[in-house]
Amino acid sequence: MLPRIASLQNVKIKNLVKLRQRAERDRHKLMLIDGERALRLALQNNFPIEGIFYHEQTAHCALLDDARLKKIPMQPVSAGVFEKISYGNTTDPFVGLAPQPVFSLNTLPHQTNPLYLIAEGLEKPGNLGAILRSADAAGVTGLVLCNSHTDIYNPNVIRASLGAFFTVPLAQAGSDTAVQWLKDHGVQILSASPEAVRLYSQIDLTVPTAIAVGAEHAGLSAPWLAETLVKIPMNGQVDSLNVAQSASVLIFEAMRQRISKT
Amino acid sequence: MLPRIASLQNVKIKNLVKLRQRAERDRHKLMLIDGERALRLALQNNFPIEGIFYHEQTAHCALLDDARLKKIPMQPVSAGVFEKISYGNTTDPFVGLAPQPVFSLNTLPHQTNPLYLIAEGLEKPGNLGAILRSADAAGVTGLVLCNSHTDIYNPNVIRASLGAFFTVPLAQAGSDTAVQWLKDHGVQILSASPEAVRLYSQIDLTVPTAIAVGAEHAGLSAPWLAETLVKIPMNGQVDSLNVAQSASVLIFEAMRQRISKT
Repeated sequence: MLPRIASLQNVKIKNLVKLRQRAERDRHKLMLIDGERALRLALQNNFPIEGIFYHEQTAHCALLDDARLKKIPMQPVSAGVFEKISYGNTTDPFVGLAPQPVFSLNTLPHQTNPLYLIAEGLEKPGNLGAILRSADAAGVTGLVLCNSHTDIYNPNVIRASLGAFFTVPLAQAGSDTAVQWLKDHGVQILSASPEAVRLYSQIDLTVPTAIAVGAEHAGLSAPWLAETLVKIPMNGQVDSLNVAQSASVLIFEAMRQRISKT
Repeated sequence: MLPRIASLQNVKIKNLVKLRQRAERDRHKLMLIDGERALRLALQNNFPIEGIFYHEQTAHCALLDDARLKKIPMQPVSAGVFEKISYGNTTDPFVGLAPQPVFSLNTLPHQTNPLYLIAEGLEKPGNLGAILRSADAAGVTGLVLCNSHTDIYNPNVIRASLGAFFTVPLAQAGSDTAVQWLKDHGVQILSASPEAVRLYSQIDLTVPTAIAVGAEHAGLSAPWLAETLVKIPMNGQVDSLNVAQSASVLIFEAMRQRISKT
């Protein structure tokens, strides 16, 4: 039997449209996942998807097969409905619904020689997305978000991350808590600051390491600035790098050192 | 004598508003520069600004003093006019007008041991802005833009670059021309490609070097792929880095090698 085609009158659909607003997402502790690529990575990483809505004219595809195997409810919808629930982004015929997971330090994976990236006070979904993408590529053990000023469950974060939201182990924590947790786990903490004397590349990053980057304007807060400071050399006239660029340069240097040591 | 306060009826103002559209900018070979920070860097780098429009209630400031010294025409405008010409971005009370410069390989500065960054087929103003910012910070000799699909004179490029548009020597060229020019100048060419066997960090980047990065989807074109290929190791599940992140990782590695050699 074919699933029933949902209409705009359907209460579930109405609620789905409302979830484009942060207040509604937070009230229901739900999030939206746009597009096949992100949904595929979510499925591969056993993210608890509650349902997938798709354009009724979507051809048979691997994503729907996978979702069926995992017994995830699927709902075909008309073109008009899909345009509404996808916020006009109709080039990719899938929208997923999932609970907002709670990301805590305790759920980060254990690893003998971890490399953590800490991002404090992020303001823009696009920057968080770009950082997730670099964190995925560099293969960090986990990304710890401290005092985020951006909604980490914003669909734009997932879109900008190309789905790395589902591949990078995440934690949210206050800065004091995160610093203490890292110390308790014997991880050296390096805080990026233009005020630092030492270059990031002069530090041994092959031991258990956490690299902290701060928001563009405010920089890192006191708990991080009390740790070892490192700087990226600035040869130009513009006085700061974008936070996602800084994070990439720092974690790929750690990766380079780790590769050249093996 | 105080300068006359311009009104919306003023023809100059009307034309200025139209310049928010690319077709108008290209027709008149003009560009707009939003904000004090970008204008300050433009002035410092002797960019040929034709005029600065500012909110009539702007306090006396260093930017206006500098512009006066350089004999750049300045025009105070009413709040209503400023809102129009600044496209609603009224937090920063300055908009500048300048001719679109022609950026060619021949105008790039000469340097004994140059480091060029080549970006081919860029699609997004934000990515070009971020690349400019990293190129400024790393202190590259020049940024060569090949086959750009984005308008490099878009005000959003300048905004995203935080003014690095005015600090980084720029060139525009076809890819064949750029490859030949680099060879004629004895510069090794390294092309970023996921298909490469060698890691970027295994190459000596302390000699005259050009690093080429391509558009996110298409990658680099044939003239670049015929050169030495290098890759950034990808440990994750998402199969590409953002082009601005890749560029940053590569040019800062060159910088790191050059610093550690001295």
